[in-house]
Amino acid sequence: MPTLASLGEFAFLRRLLPQLPRGRDVLLGPGDDCAVVHARAGAWLVTVDALVEHVHFRRGWLTPAALGRRAFAVNASDIAAMGGTPRWCVTHIGAPARTAVTELDAIARGVASAAAAAGAAVVGGNLSRAAELSVTVTLIGSAPPRPLTRAGARPGDAIYVTGTLGDAALGVRLLRRDRAARGAAVTRFRRPTARLAAGALLARRRIASAMIDISDGLMQDLAHLCAASRVGARIEPTRVPCRAAVRRAGLDLALAGGEDYELLFTVAPRHAAALARHSAALGCRITRIGVCTAPRDGLQLVDTSGSTAAWRGSGHDHFKR
Amino acid sequence: MPTLASLGEFAFLRRLLPQLPRGRDVLLGPGDDCAVVHARAGAWLVTVDALVEHVHFRRGWLTPAALGRRAFAVNASDIAAMGGTPRWCVTHIGAPARTAVTELDAIARGVASAAAAAGAAVVGGNLSRAAELSVTVTLIGSAPPRPLTRAGARPGDAIYVTGTLGDAALGVRLLRRDRAARGAAVTRFRRPTARLAAGALLARRRIASAMIDISDGLMQDLAHLCAASRVGARIEPTRVPCRAAVRRAGLDLALAGGEDYELLFTVAPRHAAALARHSAALGCRITRIGVCTAPRDGLQLVDTSGSTAAWRGSGHDHFKR
Repeated sequence: MPTLASLGEFAFLRRLLPQLPRGRDVLLGPGDDCAVVHARAGAWLVTVDALVEHVHFRRGWLTPAALGRRAFAVNASDIAAMGGTPRWCVTHIGAPARTAVTELDAIARGVASAAAAAGAAVVGGNLSRAAELSVTVTLIGSAPPRPLTRAGARPGDAIYVTGTLGDAALGVRLLRRDRAARGAAVTRFRRPTARLAAGALLARRRIASAMIDISDGLMQDLAHLCAASRVGARIEPTRVPCRAAVRRAGLDLALAGGEDYELLFTVAPRHAAALARHSAALGCRITRIGVCTAPRDGLQLVDTSGSTAAWRGSGHDHFKR
Repeated sequence: MPTLASLGEFAFLRRLLPQLPRGRDVLLGPGDDCAVVHARAGAWLVTVDALVEHVHFRRGWLTPAALGRRAFAVNASDIAAMGGTPRWCVTHIGAPARTAVTELDAIARGVASAAAAAGAAVVGGNLSRAAELSVTVTLIGSAPPRPLTRAGARPGDAIYVTGTLGDAALGVRLLRRDRAARGAAVTRFRRPTARLAAGALLARRRIASAMIDISDGLMQDLAHLCAASRVGARIEPTRVPCRAAVRRAGLDLALAGGEDYELLFTVAPRHAAALARHSAALGCRITRIGVCTAPRDGLQLVDTSGSTAAWRGSGHDHFKR
């Protein structure tokens, strides 16, 4: 089986590049010093995110193709969180020299297929020897007329999340125990879905006042939104949407577990009716989990009896132990 | 001294982000899910390149700030090779948890200062734990009316390079022997200069027929240009511009040593006069080193007696041994 060490970078790229699908408005695809794309005048979104072996995944946890799809999806989720549409991406893969060429092929094609499914294209890339496998994607997207930022929430705005939370964290927990683990939570980790339709609609219809994607855990990403918006938040944990398996494993997975790539957004009372009107078109379930409060209140959890407690937990920080 | 493990990713970013200079047409800088930039309608260039510890550098070889500047420069060189102008970049840094926060600060500020010097801005980034230090930059640049690609050279076109070759490879050779090595070659490795003015002028005035930057070694990058243009090339090694120290150390450093980030370009006979007219404005020395030939000739070296030999050497491939 050829490896990068036996085939070499350039021979690998010569084989790979013709296989990548071509995107809209791509004047020059991969293979030259730069890609050339044609942009209409206006606002564009740019984001970068990386998946690093032993930090974000282990090799047995997902196929190379799923790793590539996931590397695209985590970036698409950032585009979704601003209400944008993915358009062009470039991929950097770091890989040990012993890596099989078929594995790299599958990663690159995974990125490309996820991009194509979202209406975007891989326009360039880079490959480097490295101690461990990593996939870094930079994604450019078109912005809606008013991109949704983390700032913009006001006290009194309702707090919503899309989908269910805690699945990916449960999936990782199961995979750590047994890399052959299966089931819905594992699948969720392997195949995150960026909420592109929901994000675009919430931005275009100006329904949301602020938005962020949940990559580091609900409470941590809520803290980021609250800091940017200068508000506090009161969350009802019992309302946080999670599947029965997550609830059994512990609600903390839904509150602090990362990598779900759902959207967290806030809605001013005057836009509640518009949200109700458009909710069927969002393409996913949404759940109201709390309300924005005055900044001095910080992050509070409300139990079923109505008493509140400050949130003391933490989210996902790959550097902190 | 605080490390990423003690400070955490988010506290690090909170400290760093306000220090980054703001660029033109940046509607929203780092800190949200995406950056938002304002682009005029037309062609844009996108490129990505990474510097990986133990592959592209060792930690003692250059300061963290120089590493950051270098990570920007190698991407700016790709933009230069299309004749473009750098505008916005995002940076991914992979770093072990024990990395000192001051080191990461210096890397990030190195990227930002090199960007600012080129009229560009860092608009976003990402930080991940990793086994080894790496800096990946994705750079977006504005394209000239006709971006210069590797294709476009015709038999009979003259072949030129900017600056001198082999310095960076000699610098690396010296640093491998002694990480305290000093001198012009080491400095050249530490501070590559993207030939942005030259690239832009050669494209805008339509002087060059094809262009590539020399990152993997003259002959290897020439082979890429020839393959894309479907031409052969005859090079006179004695004309290849290199400093005396490189000539003493061996001409192979200039022919096959990577990482000089000079430009290699071709000029049709009818544009020779225009090149002469504008050469003073290129901002660097240029040297004619050979001529494009029929594709069947491949890559040939001509010695002083006029006899030719096929090029059998190789360039820089991080994966091949």
